[in-house]
Amino acid sequence: MTAVEGVEVNGRLAEISRVACRIFRERGYHATSMRTIAAALGWQAAALYYYFPGKEDLLFRIMDEAVDVLTDRVLAAIDPDAAPADRLRQAMGAHITAVADHLDELSVFLNEMKALSPPRRERIQEKRDRYERIFRDILADGIARGEIVAPDPRLAGLLILAACNWLYSWYRPDGAHTPEEIATAFSDMILSGLGRK
Amino acid sequence: MTAVEGVEVNGRLAEISRVACRIFRERGYHATSMRTIAAALGWQAAALYYYFPGKEDLLFRIMDEAVDVLTDRVLAAIDPDAAPADRLRQAMGAHITAVADHLDELSVFLNEMKALSPPRRERIQEKRDRYERIFRDILADGIARGEIVAPDPRLAGLLILAACNWLYSWYRPDGAHTPEEIATAFSDMILSGLGRK
Repeated sequence: MTAVEGVEVNGRLAEISRVACRIFRERGYHATSMRTIAAALGWQAAALYYYFPGKEDLLFRIMDEAVDVLTDRVLAAIDPDAAPADRLRQAMGAHITAVADHLDELSVFLNEMKALSPPRRERIQEKRDRYERIFRDILADGIARGEIVAPDPRLAGLLILAACNWLYSWYRPDGAHTPEEIATAFSDMILSGLGRK
Repeated sequence: MTAVEGVEVNGRLAEISRVACRIFRERGYHATSMRTIAAALGWQAAALYYYFPGKEDLLFRIMDEAVDVLTDRVLAAIDPDAAPADRLRQAMGAHITAVADHLDELSVFLNEMKALSPPRRERIQEKRDRYERIFRDILADGIARGEIVAPDPRLAGLLILAACNWLYSWYRPDGAHTPEEIATAFSDMILSGLGRK
């Protein structure tokens, strides 16, 4: 394969993922056939099978890219020298804007884990665990420095990830708030609490 | 139908819902056939169609019961004379224990909305909106009394519901915490915040 052909193949793979992802999100993975995806691309099914031998190969690529996007964005957003509360804001902001920017991909990632076969599910789960550890490490550091108060750090991590993940179910690009506004409001509430002091 | 026959039919309907719900949660609604549900019940498909003419009738019953269970439990748990922060704790506690007690039903309810045809989806959405309003009303009352601080009450409601709903994706009955412990920890964190004051 020449370099030009390689770029072209990557473009094709990205196009297929994008179209498949939209349909998986709308109908669910199991309800979507390769034929449907091919039709949405304006292709014959055989052309799609050339790039992805099976539907699960396509799902795996989507999941793998989704968890990589989340991880890359969050790691890029965190200033390692910032205070733990600020790193938490940076991480939540990056996660929330990633969900908003890649709504199809992240919805599929968060919902279709069970559709993967066990060995692939394990590989994605490992990456997901590593990703979630970024949040838990910030919390642990904040607690160690006395800047974060969380009697149960594991449940604190789950609360933060719940706020960030559940976004996929209600966020609309034409809604009342930008992802940045949502991230700021969620970080403020989680750090300050809703009760009058 | 005699009263005794009526009780028997209700028992059958509940049994079908329970079994269908477990399979819908495991495989997804679209990937589950009426034949699969009948087989899990040890029935012929025709017997299942006698009770539910179509798969969507079954899904609608599950969704309708799920939102009713949530609403009934939360309304029963709230002491209308309690302070807003306490009512918020009561509502979160009831929602979280409902998700834990009815994990199959609530997972299907939270995930399969899009599988319903539009008129039925609208009926469930109306009930869901009414349910979510319980939380927003508590927040609004707390803000009016100066006992709750939430610059954006709508986003505060979404944060609380995110924490409660996302439970379905990680809660395990054999996990480290009881639903009551999770509810207490989540309410404490949401009311007090994680940042050192």
